[in-house]
Amino acid sequence: MFDNKEKTNLDELGEFGLIKHLTESIELTEKSTVKGIGDDAAVLDFSNKKTLISTDLLLENIHFDLRYVPLKHLGYKAVQVNLSDIYAMNGIASQITFSIGLSSKFPLEAVEEIYEGALIACKKYNVDLIGGDTSASAQGLVISVTSIGYADEEAITYRSGAKEGDLLCVSGDLGGAYVGLQLLEREKQIFLENPNIKPDLEGKDYIVERQLKPEARKDIVELFEAYGIKPNAMIDVSDGLASEIIHICQASNVGCKLYEEKIPLDPMTYETAREFGLDPTVCALNGGEDYELLFTVPQSDYDKIKNQLDISIIGYITEPNEGYQMIAKSGSVHPLKAQGWKAF
Amino acid sequence: MFDNKEKTNLDELGEFGLIKHLTESIELTEKSTVKGIGDDAAVLDFSNKKTLISTDLLLENIHFDLRYVPLKHLGYKAVQVNLSDIYAMNGIASQITFSIGLSSKFPLEAVEEIYEGALIACKKYNVDLIGGDTSASAQGLVISVTSIGYADEEAITYRSGAKEGDLLCVSGDLGGAYVGLQLLEREKQIFLENPNIKPDLEGKDYIVERQLKPEARKDIVELFEAYGIKPNAMIDVSDGLASEIIHICQASNVGCKLYEEKIPLDPMTYETAREFGLDPTVCALNGGEDYELLFTVPQSDYDKIKNQLDISIIGYITEPNEGYQMIAKSGSVHPLKAQGWKAF
Repeated sequence: MFDNKEKTNLDELGEFGLIKHLTESIELTEKSTVKGIGDDAAVLDFSNKKTLISTDLLLENIHFDLRYVPLKHLGYKAVQVNLSDIYAMNGIASQITFSIGLSSKFPLEAVEEIYEGALIACKKYNVDLIGGDTSASAQGLVISVTSIGYADEEAITYRSGAKEGDLLCVSGDLGGAYVGLQLLEREKQIFLENPNIKPDLEGKDYIVERQLKPEARKDIVELFEAYGIKPNAMIDVSDGLASEIIHICQASNVGCKLYEEKIPLDPMTYETAREFGLDPTVCALNGGEDYELLFTVPQSDYDKIKNQLDISIIGYITEPNEGYQMIAKSGSVHPLKAQGWKAF
Repeated sequence: MFDNKEKTNLDELGEFGLIKHLTESIELTEKSTVKGIGDDAAVLDFSNKKTLISTDLLLENIHFDLRYVPLKHLGYKAVQVNLSDIYAMNGIASQITFSIGLSSKFPLEAVEEIYEGALIACKKYNVDLIGGDTSASAQGLVISVTSIGYADEEAITYRSGAKEGDLLCVSGDLGGAYVGLQLLEREKQIFLENPNIKPDLEGKDYIVERQLKPEARKDIVELFEAYGIKPNAMIDVSDGLASEIIHICQASNVGCKLYEEKIPLDPMTYETAREFGLDPTVCALNGGEDYELLFTVPQSDYDKIKNQLDISIIGYITEPNEGYQMIAKSGSVHPLKAQGWKAF
């Protein structure tokens, strides 16, 4: 991957040299950052706001495959995946820590690419990189990100606040990241069988980007504020729509009705799923990694929601003993099941 | 390691099942914890305090060797290593996130032991476990901990505040963790050559504990408060005394004189180092993992410090162009060099 580029051995730099090299260009712009990298801990000032914390591990060959994930995209995605959790609380992400474990066979230039991607994401989302850890790894690449944010107490949206009669809504469209992954996996297989064949991803930019370079929905949190919308419950769609709906329903002790025909699918997701012999609805329900926001609002917010082009009303919240139902396009009723991300 | 115990496959539980199993007994006791595990992010309330954040990665075969590190100790140490960074800011640690990546070959009971150790540390130090991530790992065991704490703005102690004439002080004793590691490594080699020979660690409890079960020095931060001591600069000793002194001096733009004879060494550390043909002073200077606090105080605090049994005055801060000097027991002067932890 780095054959035509200069290579610098990490052991020439050492840990402190590497940290200095990677972090010397980092600018702090968030007013809540008092002290970033360079001491035992970062210092933050959220004064009268509540502090939000979330963390994720990304491990090579579990969460990503370096045979088709460009390093810059990986750094970018690692940040997005974490920011998404802060937005899912209806909060503002303000800082991240970014830790990385890597084999000494990785040249400096590879680490730089990962960092570059992370910093592009930070800049775009107004987030300061304030710390982290850098270590050798005896095995694969390890990335651990902790995101920090803030919110007024009354703005914070938990999973547990959904109420009977609420509209069930989701931002953007679903299933694209999963179908994009199928495409990348297919091209990898073709490449492994014949390394002379170049990957054929033409015309598939959108779903490939959904997989490799997701965008956390800060804009939806801003839209809520602009329109005076306060969701009763919210979660981000990392494990697939079905799993996330059930999370909200379980935490809120409610049931739900989801309408299959209302699930937002991009045409490219739909067509490519069909090419793979997959049911596009199943890709949305169980695929995951879309990083859209799933939320419920009271029916009184219908007028504020209905004209938002990037928000779909996909069902509503019911009393708990109705269970978790999906009304198929044919009209038949199916129980929703969480398949989610198979972690083990 | 688990041959006589019940084994439960992780894939029977799945990710959500594992998280539920591990976390259902977690109690939140910190008043700054508004919401712990169970939503997209944890919610904390530090009202008028500053928030402190630090993070560390611990990777198998880099930071620990499962052939002699008991899993419960590993969980305990992973927490201590992180809390130490918060105390090194003169802050109070209040929460941690604990992420773990592990192969599906790990039985549930192994994960439980790691968690149990982490939770014992949390309980002892009044810290809430508020989140984390649990993932499969295609390679070795991965632990990532983020610690969160708070402090009044005027209490926070950076590395950069050391002033000419300050007393250079350190808590506890040094080098023990490194000598303990040599002992464990030796017994591992003997065991690998002949598995019938039992490890001979008799009478070496203290240094073995220093390596396997370090204690972060919360008590020193409490002592500072009780005696009205405000260090000008502070850092924790994770990479060896020499490296940490130089960190403080560089950040503060000062020099220092360190007196070899003042470096606190436990007799067992001293004797065991000698048995291994090692210079005990070098073990303290470059060994690392002691997790003691190194700090500077103005000379006016001498009366408050001099009778503290667990604090040693080991030198003083000079003007920058005197450099970083160690006065050996013989009286000869040596430049201090940071060897530190070889990360790559």
